[in-house]
Amino acid sequence: MYNYIPPIDDYRFLLTRVLGFDTAMSALGQDVDADLAATVLEEAGRMCAERLHPINREGDEHGSRLVDGAVQTPPGFADAYRDFADAGWASLSADPAYGGQGLPFILQLWLDEMFSATNLSFGLFFGLTRGACEAIAAHASDDLKAAYLPKMVSGEWTGAMALTESGAGTDLALLKTKAVPAADGSYAVTGQKIFISSGDHDFGGNIVHLVLARLPDAPPGVKGISLFLVPKYLPDGARNAMSVGALEQKMGIHAQPTCVMNYDGATGWLVGEPHRGLAAMFTMMNAERLMVGIQGLGVAGAAYQQAAGYARERLQGRSADGARGPVTIIEHADVRRMLLNIRAFVEAGRALAGWTALQLDRAHRHPDAAERAEADAFVALLTPVVKAAFTDFGFESAVQAQQVFGGHGYIREWGMEQYVRDARIAQIYEGTNGVQAMDLVGRKLALGGGAVVERFFDLVSGDLDAADAPLTAGAVREALGLLRDVTSSLQGASVNAAGAAAVDYLRLFALVSMGWMWVRMESAAAQGDTPLEQAKLAVARFFVDRMLPQTKGLAVAIQTGEASMMALAPDAF
Amino acid sequence: MYNYIPPIDDYRFLLTRVLGFDTAMSALGQDVDADLAATVLEEAGRMCAERLHPINREGDEHGSRLVDGAVQTPPGFADAYRDFADAGWASLSADPAYGGQGLPFILQLWLDEMFSATNLSFGLFFGLTRGACEAIAAHASDDLKAAYLPKMVSGEWTGAMALTESGAGTDLALLKTKAVPAADGSYAVTGQKIFISSGDHDFGGNIVHLVLARLPDAPPGVKGISLFLVPKYLPDGARNAMSVGALEQKMGIHAQPTCVMNYDGATGWLVGEPHRGLAAMFTMMNAERLMVGIQGLGVAGAAYQQAAGYARERLQGRSADGARGPVTIIEHADVRRMLLNIRAFVEAGRALAGWTALQLDRAHRHPDAAERAEADAFVALLTPVVKAAFTDFGFESAVQAQQVFGGHGYIREWGMEQYVRDARIAQIYEGTNGVQAMDLVGRKLALGGGAVVERFFDLVSGDLDAADAPLTAGAVREALGLLRDVTSSLQGASVNAAGAAAVDYLRLFALVSMGWMWVRMESAAAQGDTPLEQAKLAVARFFVDRMLPQTKGLAVAIQTGEASMMALAPDAF
Repeated sequence: MYNYIPPIDDYRFLLTRVLGFDTAMSALGQDVDADLAATVLEEAGRMCAERLHPINREGDEHGSRLVDGAVQTPPGFADAYRDFADAGWASLSADPAYGGQGLPFILQLWLDEMFSATNLSFGLFFGLTRGACEAIAAHASDDLKAAYLPKMVSGEWTGAMALTESGAGTDLALLKTKAVPAADGSYAVTGQKIFISSGDHDFGGNIVHLVLARLPDAPPGVKGISLFLVPKYLPDGARNAMSVGALEQKMGIHAQPTCVMNYDGATGWLVGEPHRGLAAMFTMMNAERLMVGIQGLGVAGAAYQQAAGYARERLQGRSADGARGPVTIIEHADVRRMLLNIRAFVEAGRALAGWTALQLDRAHRHPDAAERAEADAFVALLTPVVKAAFTDFGFESAVQAQQVFGGHGYIREWGMEQYVRDARIAQIYEGTNGVQAMDLVGRKLALGGGAVVERFFDLVSGDLDAADAPLTAGAVREALGLLRDVTSSLQGASVNAAGAAAVDYLRLFALVSMGWMWVRMESAAAQGDTPLEQAKLAVARFFVDRMLPQTKGLAVAIQTGEASMMALAPDAF
Repeated sequence: MYNYIPPIDDYRFLLTRVLGFDTAMSALGQDVDADLAATVLEEAGRMCAERLHPINREGDEHGSRLVDGAVQTPPGFADAYRDFADAGWASLSADPAYGGQGLPFILQLWLDEMFSATNLSFGLFFGLTRGACEAIAAHASDDLKAAYLPKMVSGEWTGAMALTESGAGTDLALLKTKAVPAADGSYAVTGQKIFISSGDHDFGGNIVHLVLARLPDAPPGVKGISLFLVPKYLPDGARNAMSVGALEQKMGIHAQPTCVMNYDGATGWLVGEPHRGLAAMFTMMNAERLMVGIQGLGVAGAAYQQAAGYARERLQGRSADGARGPVTIIEHADVRRMLLNIRAFVEAGRALAGWTALQLDRAHRHPDAAERAEADAFVALLTPVVKAAFTDFGFESAVQAQQVFGGHGYIREWGMEQYVRDARIAQIYEGTNGVQAMDLVGRKLALGGGAVVERFFDLVSGDLDAADAPLTAGAVREALGLLRDVTSSLQGASVNAAGAAAVDYLRLFALVSMGWMWVRMESAAAQGDTPLEQAKLAVARFFVDRMLPQTKGLAVAIQTGEASMMALAPDAF
C-alpha cells in the first residue's frame, strides 16, 4: 500500500480561500485562525498516517475476537488508542467544562475524515464516545455528568450507543428492552441489543453504554422509550450485569467489535426525562450523522490515493497515438474518468462538510439568536444530505478505485476491496440512506413551512451570481433551477410520493450542493496559478461536464411521481 | 435464506411471447420447441435450487483451501459437481460430435443464469470447461480433440484458462511464460500465471489448462503469443510439471479455487498456429463474455428474491396513512423502488441476453451465410454491452438488495453481503468493464464501417414502430434518438475521445436496449391479464419512469468530450 497523505493543503485552501474560516471564527468570538487550525490538522494527519494507516489491513484480516466473553481488538489497536487519547485527540471539540479543547467542529469533522481514511474501525471508538458525551452533557443529571464526562472526554473511558434490537432497527417504536426502577434511584435494565459498535474492547477503562429501554409504565411506541446510562463497571468497581453475547460477523469493519449485548438486570441511571429517550438521542444525531457522512468521504479519499498511486506506476497498454507502450495506465482516459469521479466528489464533499460544520459551530456559538437559529436550520437541512450522499458517493468511489486495480483490486492483499467492504456500512448505519432521504423530503423541506430550504437556495443562488466562475456557475445555476422546481412539487407531498422521490431527490440536492462548492472553489482557484489551483480548475470542469448532468435524469425521474412504484401488489414482488 | 425459485414462467413467457423461439428454431432446422426448452430449464432449475443454493453460504464461509499442494473445495461441491455432470448438465450446448447435446445456446445461457443465481463459484467450473472445449474444437489437432473433448464435454474432466500474469492482465502483450519445443512435438511450458479460476480441484479427473505462452522465436507483443494445452495428468497418467503455488485470497467467490499456477517445464501441445494464440482465445470470447454478463444478472435475480421475501415479512414502520403499524416494509415506496430497480433490470436483461443468445445460435446454424454474418455481427456488437452493463447493474442490484435488509444486510449470516462480494468479480474478469466499453466504442461501432450498429438501431426502431406499447415505446424511441446522435459523434473518434466516452456510452446503449426489450414485453403482456402479464406492465412503466431517464444525463456527459478528462498532468492526480 502507498502511504496516506493527509489533505492538509486542501484544508488550508478551504479554510482561507473558500469558507472564510477566520471571519467566521471572529464572528463567534473564537480565538482560532486558519493557521492554528491547519497546524492542528497537520499533527492529527501525521499521527493517522503513521499509526492508523499501517494497522488497517491487519485489523481487517485479524478482526476483533471474542475470547472468554471479552473482546480482543487486533494487534496495535489498544496501543494506538491510548496514544491518541493521551495526545488529546479524543477531546478536540469537547466542552472545556469537562476537559475538552473546545475547538470548532469543522476541525473535528476533518479529523474524522482522516480517521476514516486511515482506519474506519478505529475512528468509530472516538466517534461513539463523543456522541455519548453529547447526550450525557445535554440531558443527564449533574451527578452523572461529573462522574462520567471528564473521563470520557479525556478518552480514558469510551462510550457506546445501544439502540437497535433484532426486531427494532429503523423503527425504534418496536423495542422491548425493559428498565425497572430500584429503591436507590437506579434502574435494572434487561434486554438484548444488536449491532452495538464499540460495545466492548481491551483498551482498559470503563465502557459507558447509553441504552434505550422501556419503563414499566411506558406507553407503547416511540413515546414510551427512555434513555439509560449503563456502565460496564459500576462506581464501586464491580462488573455490571451486562455481557457480550457475540460479535456480529460482518461484511467489513472487522477490526471494530460490533457486539450483541445482553443486559441482565444491569444497573443503569436515567438520562433525561422518562419516556423522552428518543429526544435525548436526537440531540447528538446531527453531529453523528455528519460524522458518518464524512466516513464515506474519508474512505473515498484514501481509496483515491491508492488508485492514483497505482495508476501512475502500473504499466499496461499503449499511448493514445499508439507510439509508446507499455504506458502507465494514468494515460488512459477511462482510468482518469474513474479517478476524477472520485476526486470531484471528495473535494466538493470536503468543502460542503466544512461549510456545514461551520454552521454547526455558528448554531452553537453565535452571540445572535437569529443567527444561531438560521445556522441550526441549515445544519438540519444539510445533515441527511451529507450523511446519505457522501456515503453513497463514498461507496461508489471505493468501488471505482478498486476497479482501477483490475484483478488485483479483487485480491485482499492490495487493500482495495477492504475499502469497499468498510465503506458499505456507512450507507446503512446511523439511519439507512433511504431513511435519510425520507427525513430530507418528509421533514426538512417542511422546516419553517418551506422557508429554510428557500433561504438555502437563495444563499446558493447569491453565491452563483457573485462568483467569477465561468466554468461552473452557468451549469450549476441550471441544475439549481431543476432542484427548485422539483422541490416545489414535493412540498406537502404524501408519504408515498415523498418516499418514491426521496432517494433521487437527495442525490439531486447533493449534486447541486457540491456544484455550489465547485463554483466557490473555481472562483478562488482562478485567482492564482499554483499546482493546487490549476488542478482545482481541471476537476471543477470535470464535475460540470461529467457528474452534474446526472441532475437532468434525476429531475425527470422524480417528477414521474409514485404511481409506477405503488402499482404492484405485495405478493407480486 | 429463502428458497430459490427458478424463473421458469418468465423463460416461458420470453420464449413463446417475446423472442419467437419456435420460429427461430425452425429457421435453423433445430428440432426443439419452447415446451421442450422450458422442460429442460425447469429440470436444471430444480437441481440448482435443491443442490447449489443450499451450499452457497457454507461455500463462502469455508472457501476452497490449499492443503499439501492440492485444492480442497468446500463441503458438498465435489458431490454436486459429479451429480450435475452425470445428469448431463456439462454438455447442454456442446457439439454432439463429442458427446454434447447440441441444444441452443439460449438454454445454456439461462442455465448459466440459474447457476450464477444459486452458486456463482460452482457455475464457473462448467463455464470454463465449456470455453476450453470451444477453443480446442476450433483450433486443436484432431488427435488433441479426440483425446480431450469427449471427456471434457461429458464433464469427466474440467478445463481452465491460463492467460493472466502479474504484469500482464488487460495487456497480454506483456506476458512472459515460455514454451520450448521438444523432440516429440510437445512443448515444455514454464512460467507463472495468476487469477486462474478452477486451476485445481478435488472433483477427480483431469484438469486441462489452456496456457498462453511465447515460443523461443516469438516476435514481441501480441503477435508472439501461442496457445498450449497443458493437462494436469499426462496421457500416461503421470503428473505434469505444474503446481498450484497459492490460492488467491479474494473479496468473494471464496468457494472457487482461483489459483496462482506454476508451470515448471510442463508438457503441453500447441493449439492452433504458432503466434496465433490470441486469435484462438478470441474464438470463445463472445460466449464467455455473455456468460459473465449473465452472472451479474443471475446474482441480481437471486438477491432480488431474497430481498423481496424479506420485505414481505419484515415489520417496521407505519402505513402511509399512519393508521397501521408496524407494517411489512414492502409497503414503503422506497423499498419498492429498490426492488423494482433490480427487477426492471433483471427481466429486461434476461430478455436481451436471450435475444443475443438466439443470434449466436443463428450465427452458428443458419443455412444462409448472409443471415449468419448478420447474426454474428449483432453478437459482436451486443457482447460487450451484455458483459459490462449486466455486471454493473448486477452489482448495483446486489447492493440495493442488501440495503433492503438494513443492518441485517451487513451481517454475513443473511447472505446478502456475499451476493455483493461475489457479483463484484464479474465487473473485473474476462476483460474489465472499461475494456468492454472501449471494445464497443473503439471496435464494434466501426464494424462494417458503422453499418452494423445502424442495422441494429433500424431493427430496434422497426420494433418500436410495430409495437403496441403505449407505456414504453415513446420514451424508448426518444432515448434511441439520443443514442443515435451520440453514436454518430463517436464514429471515428480518437482513442482518448473514445476512452472518455466509453463507459457512459455503453450504459446508454444498454438502457436503450433494455428499453427495447421492455417495449416487446409490454406489447406481449398487454394481450393478456395473468398476474405475470399484469406485473410486466407495472415493471415496464417503472423502467420508463425511473431508470430510462438516466439516458438524458449520459447523452449530455458524453458529448462534452475528452478535454475535461485529459487536462490534468499524471503527477497532479
